[in-house]
Amino acid sequence: MPLAKSMEVSEYVKLLSKKMDDKSLTIGVVGLGYVGLPTALAFHKSSFNVWGIDKSEDVINSLKNNKSHLFEGDNILIPNDSRWNITTSYENSIPNCDVVLICVPTPVDRNHMPDISMIRQSFKSISNTIINSQRITIILESTVQPGMTNLCLNEIISKKPALSNMINIAYCPERVSPGEINHGVSQVARVIGSNDLILTNLLAKLYKNITSGEIMAVSSIEVAEASKLVENTQRDIDIAFVNELSILMPKIGIDVEEVLSAADTKWNFHRHTPGIGVGGHCIPIDPHYYIQMAIKNNVISSLSPAARKLNSSMPNYVAGEIMDFCGPVSSKILVLGYSYKPNIGDSRETPIKYLIEILINGGHDVVLWDPLVKKEEIPKNFNVLESPYEVNDLDCVVLATAHDQILGINWESIKKNMHNPKIYDGRRCLDISTMVESGWSMRAIGLPLK
Amino acid sequence: MPLAKSMEVSEYVKLLSKKMDDKSLTIGVVGLGYVGLPTALAFHKSSFNVWGIDKSEDVINSLKNNKSHLFEGDNILIPNDSRWNITTSYENSIPNCDVVLICVPTPVDRNHMPDISMIRQSFKSISNTIINSQRITIILESTVQPGMTNLCLNEIISKKPALSNMINIAYCPERVSPGEINHGVSQVARVIGSNDLILTNLLAKLYKNITSGEIMAVSSIEVAEASKLVENTQRDIDIAFVNELSILMPKIGIDVEEVLSAADTKWNFHRHTPGIGVGGHCIPIDPHYYIQMAIKNNVISSLSPAARKLNSSMPNYVAGEIMDFCGPVSSKILVLGYSYKPNIGDSRETPIKYLIEILINGGHDVVLWDPLVKKEEIPKNFNVLESPYEVNDLDCVVLATAHDQILGINWESIKKNMHNPKIYDGRRCLDISTMVESGWSMRAIGLPLK
Repeated sequence: MPLAKSMEVSEYVKLLSKKMDDKSLTIGVVGLGYVGLPTALAFHKSSFNVWGIDKSEDVINSLKNNKSHLFEGDNILIPNDSRWNITTSYENSIPNCDVVLICVPTPVDRNHMPDISMIRQSFKSISNTIINSQRITIILESTVQPGMTNLCLNEIISKKPALSNMINIAYCPERVSPGEINHGVSQVARVIGSNDLILTNLLAKLYKNITSGEIMAVSSIEVAEASKLVENTQRDIDIAFVNELSILMPKIGIDVEEVLSAADTKWNFHRHTPGIGVGGHCIPIDPHYYIQMAIKNNVISSLSPAARKLNSSMPNYVAGEIMDFCGPVSSKILVLGYSYKPNIGDSRETPIKYLIEILINGGHDVVLWDPLVKKEEIPKNFNVLESPYEVNDLDCVVLATAHDQILGINWESIKKNMHNPKIYDGRRCLDISTMVESGWSMRAIGLPLK
Repeated sequence: MPLAKSMEVSEYVKLLSKKMDDKSLTIGVVGLGYVGLPTALAFHKSSFNVWGIDKSEDVINSLKNNKSHLFEGDNILIPNDSRWNITTSYENSIPNCDVVLICVPTPVDRNHMPDISMIRQSFKSISNTIINSQRITIILESTVQPGMTNLCLNEIISKKPALSNMINIAYCPERVSPGEINHGVSQVARVIGSNDLILTNLLAKLYKNITSGEIMAVSSIEVAEASKLVENTQRDIDIAFVNELSILMPKIGIDVEEVLSAADTKWNFHRHTPGIGVGGHCIPIDPHYYIQMAIKNNVISSLSPAARKLNSSMPNYVAGEIMDFCGPVSSKILVLGYSYKPNIGDSRETPIKYLIEILINGGHDVVLWDPLVKKEEIPKNFNVLESPYEVNDLDCVVLATAHDQILGINWESIKKNMHNPKIYDGRRCLDISTMVESGWSMRAIGLPLK
């Protein structure tokens, strides 16, 4: 039975704590994507009652058939018991919940402005379906600017003041790193803040049920919100610097990878590998939330805008390198890999999309192979292959994503069909001397021309 | 006896190797400062013959009296045997040497342009004093742009072509971190490159005599040169980002230190602490070498210039914060600490100098105490105290360098002499609640106003 609304926070926390201890707590998860689904599964595994809510009928149908819709879905077991409930309906689910996690995307629009409409919609749907006898805690996990979680709550309270005694809020930024088996929901350290320190400490304990990582309870929601932006903005800046080096070092005849490996022998250096650009749901997006926060507060931020500009220009730079490699003729180019990161089928914000577009606009005939990305995730005008070996008269191969299946390609089989075999390594994962010795003409990002 | 000049590199390396193995090798070190002196001492400790060369009579006289002129000198034992020779004279020293390390400063001029005049002078002095029967290897340790080591050699060879058979060169960037006991000459990993891989490998073995760290032999001098610039430019950028956060976070009511500690629970976050700015012989200078290299090669570098601008503006920002704290009256301000880093007396490029100048220009009466910096290192117009307790009618205290002796100050004794005790923590090293409870009005970098 949900908790009554009229009590003090300390009393509420005591009851919540009791439900947590005897596992009678019911947890709702709004948004069953990369973050929400593994989180819902983790709480279910920890013996809690779980309601998963997603607006997509397809997602719910897939899960009802015990199939995950995620790219990594093959290894995900969907439960089939009374503690596991999934639905598109807030009405059916919210009234059963004690704690509701919101795990919906927070993208940017075409002008790189934060778009938190999905969070607003989730708050609205919860506020419309919460029942009068109920008291819930909403924990937002999506990336937002500091102050936004409280703003979303205040927006619904201003329309329905009674909610102020029915809803507590907290913020616990997700840190899922798709495809990184050691940095999933069950391993990562978490940061959590709410408007009440007793509640924060209890919720920290709640998350301890699903992760072996540290849980840091911070003094406010805003600190937790800021920490997420700071993490990913730093990462974008660090990667931008090595990408800049990948452009500069070859100009002075130096291989960027050798320089970075040398620098990495210093105790406080942070090694990153340059590439075709950053992708995914965090690094290309969260810095825009940071930049807008700085602008709103009249702080001149120049590092993050410079990093964004540099990282988002990398597909353009690499396309230029490839076109220079191919020469002033229309070439047939095989691009290997489409997702933004090795060994996952996640193509959100993938820089390879822009790389291919620029090559096509440059008059080249591009064929693409990615063993992990679903065909429907790839633009319809891209020529997608079933196998990397099925294409003839190739002029150039571009290694764009370092999937194991791509590294394991039989290069001889591909080379056989090429008159003048050329390969461009956009991820610095091929052994250059091996490729050159076996007859490839090779270029790579950050590598000087001979 | 020095090695003859006419042999092949491989033959030369063999002989050098023999001398290295039987410790008959003689090593010259040009420039006996923070880098050169500990390096010379380390090679002496490893049983090599050492000639230390410095243009300063004072330095040589001090060392001849078995005293180090360095700020950390108290713990340095100066040898007193036949393997240890120090002189201002190249004529007396170079003809005895097999290997000569150049460890002179490479500053920037007023326009932030690289100034390698001291390296050029060292090369010139060596080339003027090398004797005809001699063959030496010069190893440059000072920070330079890629290509500069070879350029310096070529400059002397163009004037005296015979030197091309008498001098080999290598580059092994110093990584001494003053005051950091675990990152001294005897511990740090090193990177080394020369124009000949056999020689590089031998010199790597030579350095292995003085450090427990890894020695990475790289494929060229230029890679080694670039690695040093890349290391320190990255560090400047990383520190700039947290300094930017220390300005932005208080504007949204958040303590930057709490945000950074929260972000630091993420596996790939790099924690830095904001402050009054960066100092020392590397971080404020080396990025200018990097920026000029980028400009010369037509690469748009925006990260490093943004970082430089931000870090060098920090004294200005902090001075503004302090003046706001003091209010619109001329105040008496005690600045604690002058060196750029805790627990050393090194004041090179210290941001505290600019902080004090701005406060003085703002009409304030500034008194300064630093237990480690020698008085002659401090501008004459600064009012330097012998003790932090000897001043009355103070309005504000500024903690500028976190020396242990400053953290151990008896704050009660200082507070007694203040009507309205105010303290500004420019290094985030004081416990805020303790200070506030004991009656201080407190502000700190990155901390929001109450």
